[in-house]
Amino acid sequence: MINKLTDRIKKTGAPIVVGLDPNLRFVPEQIKKAAYEEFGETPEGAAEAVWQFNKAIVDAVYDLIPAVKPQIAMYEQFGLPGMAAYKKTVDYCHDRGLIVIGDVKRGDIGSTSESYAIAHLGHIKIGSTEHALFDEDFATVNPYLGSDGVKPFIDVCRVEHKGIFVLVKTSNPSSGEFQDRQVIAEDGRTRRLYELVGEQVDAWGADLMGEGYSYVGAVVGATYPEEGRILREIMPKAYILVPGYGAQGGRGADLVHFFDKDGLGAIVNSSRGIIAAYQNDKYASYGPEAHADASRAAVEDMIADIRGALENR
Amino acid sequence: MINKLTDRIKKTGAPIVVGLDPNLRFVPEQIKKAAYEEFGETPEGAAEAVWQFNKAIVDAVYDLIPAVKPQIAMYEQFGLPGMAAYKKTVDYCHDRGLIVIGDVKRGDIGSTSESYAIAHLGHIKIGSTEHALFDEDFATVNPYLGSDGVKPFIDVCRVEHKGIFVLVKTSNPSSGEFQDRQVIAEDGRTRRLYELVGEQVDAWGADLMGEGYSYVGAVVGATYPEEGRILREIMPKAYILVPGYGAQGGRGADLVHFFDKDGLGAIVNSSRGIIAAYQNDKYASYGPEAHADASRAAVEDMIADIRGALENR
Repeated sequence: MINKLTDRIKKTGAPIVVGLDPNLRFVPEQIKKAAYEEFGETPEGAAEAVWQFNKAIVDAVYDLIPAVKPQIAMYEQFGLPGMAAYKKTVDYCHDRGLIVIGDVKRGDIGSTSESYAIAHLGHIKIGSTEHALFDEDFATVNPYLGSDGVKPFIDVCRVEHKGIFVLVKTSNPSSGEFQDRQVIAEDGRTRRLYELVGEQVDAWGADLMGEGYSYVGAVVGATYPEEGRILREIMPKAYILVPGYGAQGGRGADLVHFFDKDGLGAIVNSSRGIIAAYQNDKYASYGPEAHADASRAAVEDMIADIRGALENR
Repeated sequence: MINKLTDRIKKTGAPIVVGLDPNLRFVPEQIKKAAYEEFGETPEGAAEAVWQFNKAIVDAVYDLIPAVKPQIAMYEQFGLPGMAAYKKTVDYCHDRGLIVIGDVKRGDIGSTSESYAIAHLGHIKIGSTEHALFDEDFATVNPYLGSDGVKPFIDVCRVEHKGIFVLVKTSNPSSGEFQDRQVIAEDGRTRRLYELVGEQVDAWGADLMGEGYSYVGAVVGATYPEEGRILREIMPKAYILVPGYGAQGGRGADLVHFFDKDGLGAIVNSSRGIIAAYQNDKYASYGPEAHADASRAAVEDMIADIRGALENR
């Protein structure tokens, strides 16, 4: 799957991923109105609205991009109907030929991480049968519990030829509270916690290599370009998933050091900046009815921004 | 809800929580057979089996204990039918008067954590209506993203009078990989990462106090009794949720320092040791048909073990 991701990035020339994080505030009124008329102002109605919203955006941008990243929390907040909309979105994106990165940020003790890995990337054995469940291509994983919380994901990835992105340095303002602490490592040297986690990502990934890149990638926020440069060196084989572009503040020019010299090795996510583009002054002329066209324009602009930055570095 | 938890612990004399982590390996054959006959060897069949298994255990032990802790990964691994079985279990435990700790270990950047908090502890606004979703009483939270990943949970808890348990020192063998690192804190002093996280739990919780204890608790593994003693002092107002008793190796005598002098302040979880008791030599005479009675016996023994340890310290 990491090879497929690299191929798609080369083919589209777009090292970007669209974050399908359908907060109801982003969904145009006409979509919500139609869904509520059918299902009421209920979790079922909200789930229908976000599904229709997603579908319109995916239809408008699928040929431009290699991958999408649905944020499961935005579906989980609508309970069971929301989870069904999540699964429907994953399947629809697959039908459209897109790679799906499930932004699930799971992580637990070994036996429990195994269940999460099965849920999102693997197959569950039931009696004499096997079943795929949520069936994303990649999942994001939280490293706080250490190797035995991460390795069950790697074991499933080995069987399924899928991948993970481990949280290393997250894009949020308080990510430094623990991640930036100077820690004393086993070798007695001092480094930042995110560097130590990055070293582990490199070690975990050495064992599960695709062509040039590992199936074990990392999440490093666009809002921390200097840390991106450092982590690029610590984890030379890891694909870096870079959230925080656009609405959270990251810009193409800040991101060149997340990439390798050949323009690979990183994939930049934008969520609100794409899916709610019609709410942005820049794309407001599209209006809510043509929200998906606004999203397409925003994707084109984002690709141009990042390509330009990579060409001019 | 933290006051309710304290009251229930006093009333039952049982500072314990039963972990409803229904791995299919724990479910007796006759339950699986009946479920598969009705729904096939499918995720629906597996979800029915774990629901019937849970129901039997809850019916057998509900009068002895204050709370249950379903581990959502064990349901998520059966996809959407599994999530429905999770919700059915949460609701049934509420009907039986039990407090429900959702072991979800969620955590993300601020706006996303807010969605998780709404999903599990809050109400979602849809149009002019509000809806509770998974509706547990407590949730476990991963602190790796720092304060802005945790505070949205606290904000929802304030409104809903619910609580969280933040992962501080987890029970698994590799928890020390990051959590035990010596870090250099803002005051220049060196301490372990779990101590720094514990200090934050104390700070986060100061703002949201119940009677004697905060709505912000912590997870500290039974497998690390010395760390439990240290963290008890660092977080005097935090209830400590203690996983890892029994199957993972923890014993009552090891756990006395997790508790305050009055025998409050901690609640010890056992999952496999209770729900799969009939598979343990000690309770094998019950057999698979009477698996729930074996669970009841195991709960009684666990209560006696912990009470004895607290009385003899």
